[in-house]
Amino acid sequence: MKKNLLFSLFVCSFSLSALAQEVVDAAAVNKIREEGLNRSQVMKTAFYLTDVAGPRLSGSPGLRKAQDWALNELKKYGLTNGKLEPWGKFGKGWQVNKNYAAITVPYYHAIIAIPKAWTSSTKGAIKGDVTLLKIDTVTDLQKYKGQLAGKIVIIDNNAPALVRSKNPDLSRYTDEELAKMAAATSQPAGGRAAQRGGGNPQMAAFMAARLKAAAMRTAISQFFQQENVALILSQGRGTDGTVFTSNGASYADTAKAALPELETSGEDFLRIVRLLRAGQKVSMEADIQTQFFNDDLKGYNVIAEIPGTDKKLKEQVVMLGGHFDSWHAGTGATDNAAGSAVMMEAVRILKAIGFKPKRTIRIALWSSEEQGLFGSRGYVAEHFGKRDSLKAEQGKVSAYYNLDNGTGKIRGIYLQGNAGVGPVFNSWLEPFKDLGATTVTISNTGGTDHQSFDAVNIPGFQFIQDGMDYNTRTHHSNQDTYDRLVEDDLKQAATIVASFVYHTAQRAQMLPRKEAIKPAN
Amino acid sequence: MKKNLLFSLFVCSFSLSALAQEVVDAAAVNKIREEGLNRSQVMKTAFYLTDVAGPRLSGSPGLRKAQDWALNELKKYGLTNGKLEPWGKFGKGWQVNKNYAAITVPYYHAIIAIPKAWTSSTKGAIKGDVTLLKIDTVTDLQKYKGQLAGKIVIIDNNAPALVRSKNPDLSRYTDEELAKMAAATSQPAGGRAAQRGGGNPQMAAFMAARLKAAAMRTAISQFFQQENVALILSQGRGTDGTVFTSNGASYADTAKAALPELETSGEDFLRIVRLLRAGQKVSMEADIQTQFFNDDLKGYNVIAEIPGTDKKLKEQVVMLGGHFDSWHAGTGATDNAAGSAVMMEAVRILKAIGFKPKRTIRIALWSSEEQGLFGSRGYVAEHFGKRDSLKAEQGKVSAYYNLDNGTGKIRGIYLQGNAGVGPVFNSWLEPFKDLGATTVTISNTGGTDHQSFDAVNIPGFQFIQDGMDYNTRTHHSNQDTYDRLVEDDLKQAATIVASFVYHTAQRAQMLPRKEAIKPAN
Repeated sequence: MKKNLLFSLFVCSFSLSALAQEVVDAAAVNKIREEGLNRSQVMKTAFYLTDVAGPRLSGSPGLRKAQDWALNELKKYGLTNGKLEPWGKFGKGWQVNKNYAAITVPYYHAIIAIPKAWTSSTKGAIKGDVTLLKIDTVTDLQKYKGQLAGKIVIIDNNAPALVRSKNPDLSRYTDEELAKMAAATSQPAGGRAAQRGGGNPQMAAFMAARLKAAAMRTAISQFFQQENVALILSQGRGTDGTVFTSNGASYADTAKAALPELETSGEDFLRIVRLLRAGQKVSMEADIQTQFFNDDLKGYNVIAEIPGTDKKLKEQVVMLGGHFDSWHAGTGATDNAAGSAVMMEAVRILKAIGFKPKRTIRIALWSSEEQGLFGSRGYVAEHFGKRDSLKAEQGKVSAYYNLDNGTGKIRGIYLQGNAGVGPVFNSWLEPFKDLGATTVTISNTGGTDHQSFDAVNIPGFQFIQDGMDYNTRTHHSNQDTYDRLVEDDLKQAATIVASFVYHTAQRAQMLPRKEAIKPAN
Repeated sequence: MKKNLLFSLFVCSFSLSALAQEVVDAAAVNKIREEGLNRSQVMKTAFYLTDVAGPRLSGSPGLRKAQDWALNELKKYGLTNGKLEPWGKFGKGWQVNKNYAAITVPYYHAIIAIPKAWTSSTKGAIKGDVTLLKIDTVTDLQKYKGQLAGKIVIIDNNAPALVRSKNPDLSRYTDEELAKMAAATSQPAGGRAAQRGGGNPQMAAFMAARLKAAAMRTAISQFFQQENVALILSQGRGTDGTVFTSNGASYADTAKAALPELETSGEDFLRIVRLLRAGQKVSMEADIQTQFFNDDLKGYNVIAEIPGTDKKLKEQVVMLGGHFDSWHAGTGATDNAAGSAVMMEAVRILKAIGFKPKRTIRIALWSSEEQGLFGSRGYVAEHFGKRDSLKAEQGKVSAYYNLDNGTGKIRGIYLQGNAGVGPVFNSWLEPFKDLGATTVTISNTGGTDHQSFDAVNIPGFQFIQDGMDYNTRTHHSNQDTYDRLVEDDLKQAATIVASFVYHTAQRAQMLPRKEAIKPAN
């Protein structure tokens, strides 16, 4: 009952505020649109972050190269207080220096496969037979004792035939889907925070199963090391040459080296498995060389500012950002050079139109988001404290805007349950309805860096973005490259973000916070 | 007017014959369905032709291995007169023994790329810078004189951004599309024969442009050889890791060696091109080893029979087949292990049900279809003559059935303008309507081996097949692998082909020929 009442109040507040609309600076919006849509540099920025820098895995030289470039670029735009700010200890850097694997028997065929992040090198160029292992329990390992030295192994995962999608790779939100989001009154739990939650029995069983699987993996891994296995092949998600990747070992500086492991395209993996199941001999050759970097175990965020000019308000801050690190198989174009380039472009636009903000504008390009939002969490802890021990600066951040859902244009924004901001954002979206940005939803979205701010009750928002081929092709895959970036979408996003940041910087008050509207218990 | 009258007569003949239906042997159909749908071996056959044999490029050891296996398998089914029958001179065999290429500057990234068929090896493992060339005319070559030794070259093709499809990869015929095909009265020109035709000015211009482009390619190729270019990269059609391939040099035994050339995935190609256009240095390493085979320049078809048992009719023949050769980047699963496995399965079904045909049934698995229907043309010329000098055997072939349009199930059959067969096929399809095979169209389809028969007025037919992902993913691509084969579709196809062959073998008369119903001039 109380819950229902609460939601009714939310809806009511929305309707009233629609009448008393937030002031929108039409002249500023026009300048921002002109600069963002007609003189965009977002694709140039994206090109440097992807094609030129390469993969930007946490701790890797590629990430550092891109950070240095971005910092310099932000300075060129005219931002100040630019720095690479350490957020804490991350661990080892890692990169691929050689990646070659092929079957040689029953015939030659070079396979599409990606070394799992933080796995080791093969012992030079190797040749060996492929062995298919049936391992359902730890005791199954014993039957392979003494037999696996120099072998390339596959654990038979009972994989069925490849399932190929009947849907198009690319998708955008339909009007119906957006209307449903706008009409939502509940806040469906989203993202990582929700996945971690205990409490319900299903989740407990899920977590137990995960722990058991992890223990199994550890036992298998140790056994393979003892047995001197040469290389592990596992099946990467994806079809048609697209391979989704992840890490296969710990990045901790104290972690022991893990065996080389290739996440193999579904087609190549299943071909080998089918041959082995049919009793055919399969031999391979491979040369996987990876490199670890231990010289600097710290993680860094790129930070820069457009300082505030209002005597009273310049101590207050509007933040915008996105994570800058990526996975290693592609160049992290949609995850998240797109969001990073858009945020850089947004501050470029604001500088280009000669904006002197009342509040200070601060851009942050996070690292190690992919390992657990580490960069933004570290930054927030350092500057704003923790939920039970907040620092004074926590009270001075009006909002944090995040972009990390691929290349799709902005269709609106998630309120993360902060109903008080709804009318404000509805007004600010008004001048961008012609560009497809229409929808304010009370809902949460998860899985990225605005959660680090939301966790300490700083209004933190992720925009609603068209999905495009994020889930079907690019998200953590070898196909996450510049080619997936949609120029018009990135221009639109940068323009809208710039306008949101502009209005947040100039608004009479800071944005309302969730606590302020919470009914008393 | 005459033309229109002719087509009206066709339609009329269809309608009348629907009343006087061809006899269908329901008991035989039941046995064929039972064997084909419930005891199928088509996937096992397809597995051997693809995963086990590997690529089956014309003249390659892979093709020979698959031919030997198929011949042995057909003998095991109980077929007789099995042989590898030479159809004439083909040329050199060729296969890939090593395929590795990666960019190493500005960072390491292994690329997805396929050696063009019949191109040469690199001089061992090479390293070099990539050079982007602007060559619009032959004279443009001179500006690069003396500069290309040891370089990896790309001709700037002014490629725009990758165009990615908004449609699903997989498609099947809709009821509307099939109805339109069934209602067709004209025979739209299809396939290669049509493409070759001269006569109209547009086509003449097209052919002239092609000749000019070919001359340009030859000049460029000679220049690159003189300049000692190390490796050529060209852009392969396709996205997401899918690369469509073809040949890059002649298979003629007299042809000179062509430089190594990699058909590069769109994403990898464009990444390199964007970097070079932006003035960034790109270096690569590569090791491409290909092998030529000159020991036997002849081409072969696999031939086997179920001999006829009727004293009068056994001299007459029903033929079925498909091409057995493939391109080299995948394992030619949909092009055309699918059709080959279905045809092998069709004769297996007929043997398994103990069928003793009146007419002789002959299966033919052609080679060198991909280079110009050579296997079937050679066979037809040898056994049945040429259009202006037919042999007596030409009069004894009732029909030739072909399958070569991928993995999609049979939805009907093309009459190739042979209207007299329409009522017969309509009746024969009747027991398979529940399996989606419904449509008889007067239309032509081209591009495969039934044309060799049609060319000498032997009724030659290709079935209508669902497109699936033939055009979007598999046709001549590195993704043409076993995973694309749809088991239910291949079972259905084999069952229907077996029934067509059964009824053709038992029919009182041979099938009507086109000449017989041509109105006198």
